[in-house]
Amino acid sequence: MNYPTIPSFDISSANLARSRQGMLTKPSGSLGLLEDLSIQLAGMTGKERPRFHRKGVIVMAADHGIAMEGVSAYPSEVTAQMVLNFLNNGAAVNVLARHAGAFVRVVDIGVSYDFHAMEGLLHRKIANGTLNMLKGPAMTRTQAEAAMQVGIEVVQSEINTSLDLVAIGEMGIGNTTASSAITAVLTGLPVEQVTGRGTGIDDIGLRKKVRVIQEAIRFNEPDPQDPLDVLAKVGGLEIAGLAGVIFGAAARRVPVVVDGFISGVAALVAVKLVPEVKPYLIASHQSVEIGHQAIWNALGLRPLLDLGMRLGEGTGAVLAFHLVEAATRLLDEMATFDEAGVSNKE
Amino acid sequence: MNYPTIPSFDISSANLARSRQGMLTKPSGSLGLLEDLSIQLAGMTGKERPRFHRKGVIVMAADHGIAMEGVSAYPSEVTAQMVLNFLNNGAAVNVLARHAGAFVRVVDIGVSYDFHAMEGLLHRKIANGTLNMLKGPAMTRTQAEAAMQVGIEVVQSEINTSLDLVAIGEMGIGNTTASSAITAVLTGLPVEQVTGRGTGIDDIGLRKKVRVIQEAIRFNEPDPQDPLDVLAKVGGLEIAGLAGVIFGAAARRVPVVVDGFISGVAALVAVKLVPEVKPYLIASHQSVEIGHQAIWNALGLRPLLDLGMRLGEGTGAVLAFHLVEAATRLLDEMATFDEAGVSNKE
Repeated sequence: MNYPTIPSFDISSANLARSRQGMLTKPSGSLGLLEDLSIQLAGMTGKERPRFHRKGVIVMAADHGIAMEGVSAYPSEVTAQMVLNFLNNGAAVNVLARHAGAFVRVVDIGVSYDFHAMEGLLHRKIANGTLNMLKGPAMTRTQAEAAMQVGIEVVQSEINTSLDLVAIGEMGIGNTTASSAITAVLTGLPVEQVTGRGTGIDDIGLRKKVRVIQEAIRFNEPDPQDPLDVLAKVGGLEIAGLAGVIFGAAARRVPVVVDGFISGVAALVAVKLVPEVKPYLIASHQSVEIGHQAIWNALGLRPLLDLGMRLGEGTGAVLAFHLVEAATRLLDEMATFDEAGVSNKE
Repeated sequence: MNYPTIPSFDISSANLARSRQGMLTKPSGSLGLLEDLSIQLAGMTGKERPRFHRKGVIVMAADHGIAMEGVSAYPSEVTAQMVLNFLNNGAAVNVLARHAGAFVRVVDIGVSYDFHAMEGLLHRKIANGTLNMLKGPAMTRTQAEAAMQVGIEVVQSEINTSLDLVAIGEMGIGNTTASSAITAVLTGLPVEQVTGRGTGIDDIGLRKKVRVIQEAIRFNEPDPQDPLDVLAKVGGLEIAGLAGVIFGAAARRVPVVVDGFISGVAALVAVKLVPEVKPYLIASHQSVEIGHQAIWNALGLRPLLDLGMRLGEGTGAVLAFHLVEAATRLLDEMATFDEAGVSNKE
């Protein structure tokens, strides 16, 4: 697979933004992370005073063969049901996207259900879900690559119609299981330390989930030095698709706001495959799902929000759009000490 | 002074909201603090599905006699200069209020400068700043009460023209000094543990600030059991005014989003004077100013944001409007499992 070429972070624009922050009517540094974020966004976009005009969240949906092992609190058909809920604007991500002035694009990249043509749904199914990774690889390398290619194409098609800030989200019953498996392999942490309750399993369910993941890793022997091998053997189609969205967006200097645990795993896979995408990632929030912290640590990112959320769908990322835009608007719209005639620090 | 009567938190509306949260298409609890917040907002407003239609931030500005002791990194005239910056829409709070769809109302409650009539400015000056609390009380009890009365009147006038969600903010060179003094007296914590760098003083400045506060407390002997005595002797006119805003808003079931350290101190004073206002307070963010944590602890509130901000003006509170509205919109707009035909937890 040919990954897109990723442009370098624009240090000169970032420096211009930093210098401007020092002239705005506030004690220097008093806007905290919002100042840092505005400087990073300048470097990502290559603009001293970036502004965003079209925001969207790309939600990749897929099913997981491992769900048949009873690792989730919900049945597999909920994946398709929630896709329909997204298309009917009834899910949390729809509400938060409306609130943020963003669109929701839903991609069937591997749901085990045949959807009719519906507005807002992209039919890009690679397979009817992954296979049960207790019996063999969840998918082939070719399928994982095809899913990444879908992500690249979907986001770049939106960028061609002026998308300039993107969030990534997902839906897939069983996908915290795949995500914990990937995290354990790529970070080297024990499975128990990166496996949580997902949609809300109990203690017995959690012990079972850990055993299932350990067994899947033992059986498939994914190679930590080969991220594509890990993604294919114990991953998911939506995770691969979201890694593709990151490649496609970073190639065009479009910042990517990363959501919860599963999206974070997609980001880690993307960075392992193409390290140059890292400067284009924004960590939206800290999930209560235990593996999420390990992901942010591995990526060296500090999340903007910590609200005890654990829903996925892109909800935390879309919620963080407001902060991302606040950062750019402060940089762009605040008066300088000179403009306002305010005395600077003595 | 006659404080307004505060209605009880509406447990029945809160319970209806909690019950609705359990029916929405998401694992129960997966929206974390946003779910809790939506339930609290239902209880505050007395509505099962509250929505906000007119949001505003009330920024109280005043000068401090203690500023002449060199406790701030900026000269006193910056208070008036920043008021003009607010009125010209150039300050951080203006940018964030526009971003949130909120108005900014600026109140001169004690700035040592004569403003002309200007749109958006309310002339409610009680005095040309407080007196130097190293030489005597910062103000009289009568002045403190008059300032609280201004706050009540200002917010209730806005509520009469349909304000239904309010943030509080402030501007006043020297006001972290007054705020640390109040915090030390009301919480019983040592001055060093509740005194920070404000707008950005250095180590020598910080040691001096601590000594000034200790001396002011020793000299004035404010009575911790008499919050009005504390407010008058070591407080500030804008702090009293903001306590008044809290009384006036809570009396009308309008939630109050509290900003940084100084606004937090106003909230603590308000709760000490009228404990019934407490359920109407929302903690917007955690400032890096060291005393802020002590305030949230004393109030038993958990802030929504932690972005390393320390600007005041209402910036953190206005930024949190987005989260407050997100909470209400999720509660109101999400589909239920029944409506969406989604299978609930097995």
